[in-house]
Amino acid sequence: MAFRPFESPSTGRQIRAVLFDTFGTVVDWRTGVVREVSTFAAAQGLHLDAERFADEWRGLYQPALDLVRSGARPFVVLDELHRESLDQVFRRLGVSPEHLGSEAVEDLNRSWHRLPAWPDSIPGLTALRAGYIIGPLSNGNTSLLVDMAKYTGLPWDVIIGSDITRAYKPSQEAYLRTAGFLGMDPGELMLAAAHNQDLEAAQLNGLATAFITRGTEYGPQQTSDRGPTGAWDLTSESITDLAGQLGVDLP
Amino acid sequence: MAFRPFESPSTGRQIRAVLFDTFGTVVDWRTGVVREVSTFAAAQGLHLDAERFADEWRGLYQPALDLVRSGARPFVVLDELHRESLDQVFRRLGVSPEHLGSEAVEDLNRSWHRLPAWPDSIPGLTALRAGYIIGPLSNGNTSLLVDMAKYTGLPWDVIIGSDITRAYKPSQEAYLRTAGFLGMDPGELMLAAAHNQDLEAAQLNGLATAFITRGTEYGPQQTSDRGPTGAWDLTSESITDLAGQLGVDLP
Repeated sequence: MAFRPFESPSTGRQIRAVLFDTFGTVVDWRTGVVREVSTFAAAQGLHLDAERFADEWRGLYQPALDLVRSGARPFVVLDELHRESLDQVFRRLGVSPEHLGSEAVEDLNRSWHRLPAWPDSIPGLTALRAGYIIGPLSNGNTSLLVDMAKYTGLPWDVIIGSDITRAYKPSQEAYLRTAGFLGMDPGELMLAAAHNQDLEAAQLNGLATAFITRGTEYGPQQTSDRGPTGAWDLTSESITDLAGQLGVDLP
Repeated sequence: MAFRPFESPSTGRQIRAVLFDTFGTVVDWRTGVVREVSTFAAAQGLHLDAERFADEWRGLYQPALDLVRSGARPFVVLDELHRESLDQVFRRLGVSPEHLGSEAVEDLNRSWHRLPAWPDSIPGLTALRAGYIIGPLSNGNTSLLVDMAKYTGLPWDVIIGSDITRAYKPSQEAYLRTAGFLGMDPGELMLAAAHNQDLEAAQLNGLATAFITRGTEYGPQQTSDRGPTGAWDLTSESITDLAGQLGVDLP
């Protein structure tokens, strides 16, 4: 099949780059963090509910980002915000992080650098890469995203972390500065995400949008983002499905 | 062979990332630009000495960067500097760039996005990638480096262009900000380059260094950088040679 780049109905432009929300959309953070917390707890002789621990840790993510987005605190890289939240979760559970080995806690904090891809992510991205520039558009910092790509085998063409744009989604600068570094008009970029709120902001800032359904990102009882809630360019069940809709040959 | 990361005698650290000067070290800019200038001249019905044109264009590179390095003008991306130099070369040759098609001239300016790799570059980088994080450390802007990687198949893990560090080598910030985005100590990075001056600055800023001999970068009469002139960690004849010295299995 001859490849023809996708033309976005919403932006009226041919898409040149497909960028992905990462945590939840490309990688299964919950499974990865639960596994790392379990290993950590066993090594430290702690009794922890690893699923609850992962959910509480992730629960502190948006409030921490909100402080930066609102300007209440200056830009801080995600690794540091994760570390602050991690200490907070330990204290909530009655564990003093100071009493744990600091290298072990630092390594646990890097769980977010070692997350497993959803089964369709690597085949889908590999297929997409033949027709488009692909990269994350994530709140992760560059070193986190580079480590994650090496760890799990994500074949990104380019990684522009939030420490490069110095902005957290859904702040406008996160989308527009990324387009600037790629030398593209925002309408030539597509954001693919499992989160409607991220797509809303991308659309508002002139990007094309694709929803990817990830029904168990937050575990089996997930209630949010179970389907598209906006007029996105595309809706898909997986990254391989998205790649097919974007006109590239599938493996 | 079991892989053991290289320990740098000069930094005393295990190397985690190997970064490459790009123009001349990884890609053969002269062959690429000569080819593009010839195609352009034929299409426009111009009689140009394509080799002289390429050499004059490249000759304006360091003077243009010097103005930014010295602070005489604020940071400008390399694509724009290349375009200013291109117009200057045309005028020197008695051609008014305004009388040429602006899209055609813009496309000629993007010659630097479409440069061929030296024959050893892709096999060498592919081998290195199994043991190290690899990327360019180039004066090219991010979109130029992304296009070049897609065009010629360079398997970078990460691309931090000069528009991200907002500094041109050999300015200190070009090296240190890159290390910062990678979350590494400068001593964990190795710069590989065909230019002794670049390695001098890298070493001064705490990076490990490797010289790669590229005896015909400037054409058959090249006189500069024909061999190492400093106490670099490694000296190599090619990127595959370098990969072998850094302990990875060769294809």
